[in-house]
Amino acid sequence: MAIASKWLAARFNKPDMKLFGFDVFALASDGDMQEGLSSEAASLAGHLKLNNLCWIWDNNQITIEGNVAWAMSEDLPTRFIAYGWNVLRVGDANDVEALTRAFLSFRREQERPTLIVVDSHIAWGAPTKQDSFHAHGTPLGDKEVTATKHIYDWPDEKFLVPEEVKKHFRIQMAEQGGVSRKEWDKMFATFQNTYPEEGKILQDMISGKLPEGWDSYCKPFPADAKGLATRQSSSECLNFIGKGVPWLLGGSADLATSCLTTLKGMDDFMPPGSQWGQYAGRNLHFGIREHAMGSIMNGLALCKLRPFGATFLVFSDYMRPPIRLSAIMETPCIFVFTHDSIGVGEDGPTHQPVEHLGSLRSIPGLAVFRPCDANECLEMWKFIMPLQDQPVAIILSRQALPTLDRQTFASAEGVHKGGYILADTSTNGAAPEVILMSTGSEVHLMVQAHQELAASGVKVRSVSFPSLEIFKQQSQEYIDAVLPNACRARVSIEASRRDSWGSLLGLDGEHVGMITFGLSAPIKKVQAELGMTVEAVMAAARRVMSGNPRKISSRAQVLKSWKKRKLSV
Amino acid sequence: MAIASKWLAARFNKPDMKLFGFDVFALASDGDMQEGLSSEAASLAGHLKLNNLCWIWDNNQITIEGNVAWAMSEDLPTRFIAYGWNVLRVGDANDVEALTRAFLSFRREQERPTLIVVDSHIAWGAPTKQDSFHAHGTPLGDKEVTATKHIYDWPDEKFLVPEEVKKHFRIQMAEQGGVSRKEWDKMFATFQNTYPEEGKILQDMISGKLPEGWDSYCKPFPADAKGLATRQSSSECLNFIGKGVPWLLGGSADLATSCLTTLKGMDDFMPPGSQWGQYAGRNLHFGIREHAMGSIMNGLALCKLRPFGATFLVFSDYMRPPIRLSAIMETPCIFVFTHDSIGVGEDGPTHQPVEHLGSLRSIPGLAVFRPCDANECLEMWKFIMPLQDQPVAIILSRQALPTLDRQTFASAEGVHKGGYILADTSTNGAAPEVILMSTGSEVHLMVQAHQELAASGVKVRSVSFPSLEIFKQQSQEYIDAVLPNACRARVSIEASRRDSWGSLLGLDGEHVGMITFGLSAPIKKVQAELGMTVEAVMAAARRVMSGNPRKISSRAQVLKSWKKRKLSV
Repeated sequence: MAIASKWLAARFNKPDMKLFGFDVFALASDGDMQEGLSSEAASLAGHLKLNNLCWIWDNNQITIEGNVAWAMSEDLPTRFIAYGWNVLRVGDANDVEALTRAFLSFRREQERPTLIVVDSHIAWGAPTKQDSFHAHGTPLGDKEVTATKHIYDWPDEKFLVPEEVKKHFRIQMAEQGGVSRKEWDKMFATFQNTYPEEGKILQDMISGKLPEGWDSYCKPFPADAKGLATRQSSSECLNFIGKGVPWLLGGSADLATSCLTTLKGMDDFMPPGSQWGQYAGRNLHFGIREHAMGSIMNGLALCKLRPFGATFLVFSDYMRPPIRLSAIMETPCIFVFTHDSIGVGEDGPTHQPVEHLGSLRSIPGLAVFRPCDANECLEMWKFIMPLQDQPVAIILSRQALPTLDRQTFASAEGVHKGGYILADTSTNGAAPEVILMSTGSEVHLMVQAHQELAASGVKVRSVSFPSLEIFKQQSQEYIDAVLPNACRARVSIEASRRDSWGSLLGLDGEHVGMITFGLSAPIKKVQAELGMTVEAVMAAARRVMSGNPRKISSRAQVLKSWKKRKLSV
Repeated sequence: MAIASKWLAARFNKPDMKLFGFDVFALASDGDMQEGLSSEAASLAGHLKLNNLCWIWDNNQITIEGNVAWAMSEDLPTRFIAYGWNVLRVGDANDVEALTRAFLSFRREQERPTLIVVDSHIAWGAPTKQDSFHAHGTPLGDKEVTATKHIYDWPDEKFLVPEEVKKHFRIQMAEQGGVSRKEWDKMFATFQNTYPEEGKILQDMISGKLPEGWDSYCKPFPADAKGLATRQSSSECLNFIGKGVPWLLGGSADLATSCLTTLKGMDDFMPPGSQWGQYAGRNLHFGIREHAMGSIMNGLALCKLRPFGATFLVFSDYMRPPIRLSAIMETPCIFVFTHDSIGVGEDGPTHQPVEHLGSLRSIPGLAVFRPCDANECLEMWKFIMPLQDQPVAIILSRQALPTLDRQTFASAEGVHKGGYILADTSTNGAAPEVILMSTGSEVHLMVQAHQELAASGVKVRSVSFPSLEIFKQQSQEYIDAVLPNACRARVSIEASRRDSWGSLLGLDGEHVGMITFGLSAPIKKVQAELGMTVEAVMAAARRVMSGNPRKISSRAQVLKSWKKRKLSV
């Protein structure tokens, strides 16, 4: 949020009209200070000279287990000085004067974020619970509360709010807020008159509306058997959209050159005095800090900006907590994950995601997209940009994928329904003999198998599923039309675990995908070794058509025999 | 690993026999220093006074995107001094004398871990690639390699290893290693003679064998309608096993009082001079550092110790990378996750896991257990302890669960098969009319629905699935006997997303579980509001028996209507 404040100020403020420049306060516990996330954030905040950020560390020395000293004895203020922070100390949380001085020092600070170390006592005044971990996770209890109020010299009434406090908050504070708001609105009205173009951009941004013609730079991709990696086509789309939506900004966790998420020709977001950029830049450098990246994206989105953030799919594990919070808070973050499968090849099992597609799809409200070619990419970007309250995860290939000829195959606009019939040889509404289902790079495996099956006279239907979540939101009529209940011979093809496919496959279908971790070898060899081949799809199709799908135990056998095997071939 | 070294030394070394005391070196990149994990680890290592740990920071100032200075400008050596580390600097990676001095300083250090800052140049000597990010992710290429060798004054041969180098590594180093090993074996033989009891423990530990009578402290739990939370029964089991297995050790990410993972009567693992414990203690305090906890567990397991580590299930997201690595490396880590569902109640959606069961099950080779009562807990602990190369995740309830009467229900030894028929009213091998499937706390919902269905004359079978992964490893005969293919009317009941159940439910079954995030309210209210009730199970059972399961679109509708709803009731 502090980054958003700096960006908005640099982008929109005028010498006589300071529309933006808000401060951000965070109350931090000992636990927050121990979590790695806070180190990532503090390091970056210092680097970016976010003098509008103030952390108040409630230094009470008590954790849930007991004593902070059982697990931490570092010199925390020095650590923050090392990050380039302004570190202040208030020796007693009840010393309002010292606190005020600290906040004034924060306000005066020109370059550094501020940490205020506030020494405090948990359950202050409670006669038997002060400074005890018993006050952390459980209520004090009526008796202790009464005794504490007695020590405070406070009436023993439940939920007592004195009149003057009510007046202060409900009337004086509300009035003050109302006045500030009116002043701001007036300034903004003047701004809109004086700078109509900028004013329009801001008005759209604030109301969550995309600018007129936001997608006018988008253009479809011609059919191309060689094609390009979806990380590349997505990169082109991002740049189309970036031109049309001025508040789209983001970056990567030090992988922009691999994830291809640079907004070309746009500045880098860098602190004042940097030779490489400025605060109005739209390309952020998060560093190798995925967890902080995801959290910062949420902060940007909460300030009405539209953030994207990229890393390899396998590293999505490092940032699951902020992805989950994005889904809970309904912030329209765009998480970009490239290098999406065993297609990564030589980097091996540690870098080959096999369980991540399923585990992202399991987060309620997160829409996961895995486009199969450049035009699915384009339609995906057109679909996701108008979403105002839904985060998306975009899953992209490292390797080149053909751009399908949409004269032969159905239009990529099917992306808007999450899943659509790409090719079908069953006629006149007759149910197909077998349904193939796939996403991303494996769609091209599916297409090859489709052609072989069709050539041998099988009535085959192939369905591309760029987003299972969006497909499931369609009408039941549409779902049944794509996947008629009568056709139980179904094969899903995806270089991932079976989880997300179980409810579409049923007991009679089969998944051609990953049972084990990956392997370290060139891509073709890895795919052959792990059964991600046309032959495997054909074999599965024949088994399900004959009502004899692979058994659960045989799948488990593969995993068992895998153990102790070498992880490279 | 440095912790393991300290523990082993404190536990087994004698004044005249120093069996353990190895040093641990890590080569760390700029990226490693930016990741939050390294901050967690460094803070804890300093606190624990791990003077046997040496990090060598390859300070080359280059990242994949380009320049470290784009994303980091902190004073890193000062940060490590704040952690309580011994910080040394070698100004030139090619200065072998300075490096040697640094390593000697590390060896002399009595209290602090050591960080050696080594200034270096990436692609040193490469005429056009030195100090460039182009040397990070892509090969130099033949021409540049030749030019670099020329600068080194080195013959331009591929894979040249001079004879004297071969001799040094293959003969001299091997000999030196052989001599050290023989000396150690001799010392260990003497140790075994002098301290036969300790020697036996060590011998078992090293060979991965459980001590004789390791489970002799285990005792079954009596039936009890009120029962106890599985976090409590698991705690008792952990303490039974802890007495029998001297190298079982672990702790929690500051949640021991909630996860109940303290080994009672055993010391805390604390640094020398601490008033609270010592290095031979078996209760570790990881602090609020889940990611480091998981990584440390891997290190302990790689050193032959048997580690457990606990936190709330929802925080498993913070430690997915080490859980995944545990599965890849096949380290027998025991991940304990309590507070396992919407049963958490008042803490609300941020603390209520709904997608975590599925996303953990999707990691290949990780066995996820969710016992339904105290005796399933006990059998689970008996099952997992002999596993030598498989990590497990144990999922436990916060709330009390009845201890089933095993006279009425099948024996909890069924746990060893991952899933087993708990109760069955179908007779003489006839297929049941409906199969109910469940895990953990929801088994008790299933049992109630079972009784109601049975009372109304339905042939119902109820299956408890403490571990889906272990069930899938059974023979196909067993799988078919538990879940006959002919019975398609199936209901799974689990307060989690549908993912892991799809392939057992098929297209005709139904999942009674979570579609959305949770709610903040007392447990009963949350369960009622989210449809985790006997009535909901009965309704689903009736629908699947009539061949009319809930449709995909109706599930999606729930999620859609959920949006913008309040997250508390």
